[in-house]
Amino acid sequence: MKRTSHIPELREIIALEKEKGRKIALVPTMGFLHKGHLSLIEHAKQTDAFVVLSIFVNPLQFGPKEDLSRYPRDLERDARMVEEAGVDVLFHPMVEEMYPRPMVTFVEVSELDTMLCGATRPGHFRGVATVVSKLFHIAQPDMAFFGQKDYQQYKLIERMVIDLNLPIKIYPVPIVREEDGLAMSSRNVLLTSEQRQQAVILSKSLKAAEVSIRAGQRSAQEIERQLRERITLESDGVIDYVEIRDTDDLSKVTDIKRPILLALAVFFGKTRLIDNKVVEVDQDV
Amino acid sequence: MKRTSHIPELREIIALEKEKGRKIALVPTMGFLHKGHLSLIEHAKQTDAFVVLSIFVNPLQFGPKEDLSRYPRDLERDARMVEEAGVDVLFHPMVEEMYPRPMVTFVEVSELDTMLCGATRPGHFRGVATVVSKLFHIAQPDMAFFGQKDYQQYKLIERMVIDLNLPIKIYPVPIVREEDGLAMSSRNVLLTSEQRQQAVILSKSLKAAEVSIRAGQRSAQEIERQLRERITLESDGVIDYVEIRDTDDLSKVTDIKRPILLALAVFFGKTRLIDNKVVEVDQDV
Repeated sequence: MKRTSHIPELREIIALEKEKGRKIALVPTMGFLHKGHLSLIEHAKQTDAFVVLSIFVNPLQFGPKEDLSRYPRDLERDARMVEEAGVDVLFHPMVEEMYPRPMVTFVEVSELDTMLCGATRPGHFRGVATVVSKLFHIAQPDMAFFGQKDYQQYKLIERMVIDLNLPIKIYPVPIVREEDGLAMSSRNVLLTSEQRQQAVILSKSLKAAEVSIRAGQRSAQEIERQLRERITLESDGVIDYVEIRDTDDLSKVTDIKRPILLALAVFFGKTRLIDNKVVEVDQDV
Repeated sequence: MKRTSHIPELREIIALEKEKGRKIALVPTMGFLHKGHLSLIEHAKQTDAFVVLSIFVNPLQFGPKEDLSRYPRDLERDARMVEEAGVDVLFHPMVEEMYPRPMVTFVEVSELDTMLCGATRPGHFRGVATVVSKLFHIAQPDMAFFGQKDYQQYKLIERMVIDLNLPIKIYPVPIVREEDGLAMSSRNVLLTSEQRQQAVILSKSLKAAEVSIRAGQRSAQEIERQLRERITLESDGVIDYVEIRDTDDLSKVTDIKRPILLALAVFFGKTRLIDNKVVEVDQDV
């Protein structure tokens, strides 16, 4: 596996592969990798593409009061994991490499950037869209892989690619969960052991909501109520949002009659966790 | 010369050339071509690249009260001109090809987009940056050519390319003028013959300002005053702005001691013309 923290060197490595006719797959990450990331890599490798994995904790997508400084990092452990997983090149730039001068150019995906996580984290998705746009221009991949845990991020990037005519196919990759159901996240290590135990309520309540929908419940308001009640009663989690949205454009849903996204964000102490579940419904029920 | 109005067809044509190892040069225009555009083409051809010229009157960069509908168009005349000039492929998409669904993604180059022309034309440069970003992703050029008449646009695109790591070299091309000095512009045909005669004051006053600076005048305020006075006294033009700016970051200049940009925008009737001049000054004077 090759490793570089420099943009020109990465460009050279990729140009050589492109000359050989190789397709390029990008897996953008913020590091501190877990099985969710390994699943992204597996999906990328299945395409037979040359796999570029980037690790960059992007300051632009963190608010001034957010957890940029406490965000977990372990580059050497990450490097061993991705080498073993078969990544072809690891790109781990410093902040100065990505932002050598103050940025004045930003990519904004309006509407999609102010709802759900965007409501609590103003500027977050502008930071995401801008850095992903930079990574796309640097690596010039044919395809890029995003985890569905960050469903809104995946949809926002997909829309950016369509609107700006980026010649890149976006692949969403299903959430990978711990044995007890907790969605894999680099932030899980920030939980105390009690918070860790309680956090299982997120996936449990999503599963229960799915069961309720399958049993015929079609009121989004009622499903939201059930989710909120369960999380509040069975944990000390403080709900940021619990919402039911259209899987495609993330618009609000009242009556559940198309595939929908159950999405939630909950604070356990200072640590904010997100989870979601797509529920397909039979349109004729 | 090849011609297409479809993005996938253009991509195919360009991919074939890239496979042959050919570099791609993009000349983005709004059509109704004149000698200024021909100069862009000449500069592009000098690089031995495969030259793509786009003609697209981009609705996104026109305000609701601006001249989108009166903007002059003549595709067949343009096509003959660019074929004769040696363009390799003409790309002339319809609005529906570039904007098949409502746009939610925009590229913003903050600071540079609200000054000078951006102050009078809110949203204009967001429209420019967004459509140029789209054209860059569609044509994937190695280099792109922009006229210096739209100096602010050139600088904004240059900054966008740097900030977003686009692998494209931006070439500014000097202003081409009519014999009497009027800067070539597609909008010149919108002038009445009297306005056309009066409009020569723009280049004349810029030349006089340069002479004044060469003679030792170092006060930006005084130069601006001279420019305004001359334009107001010798024409019916209504000044939008007359400003002296740093050639690099377009910041305001008080004392003229580095290369500066004399920039102005003046209305003749409904038609708004812009012109500018870069004046190099000996730093030790």
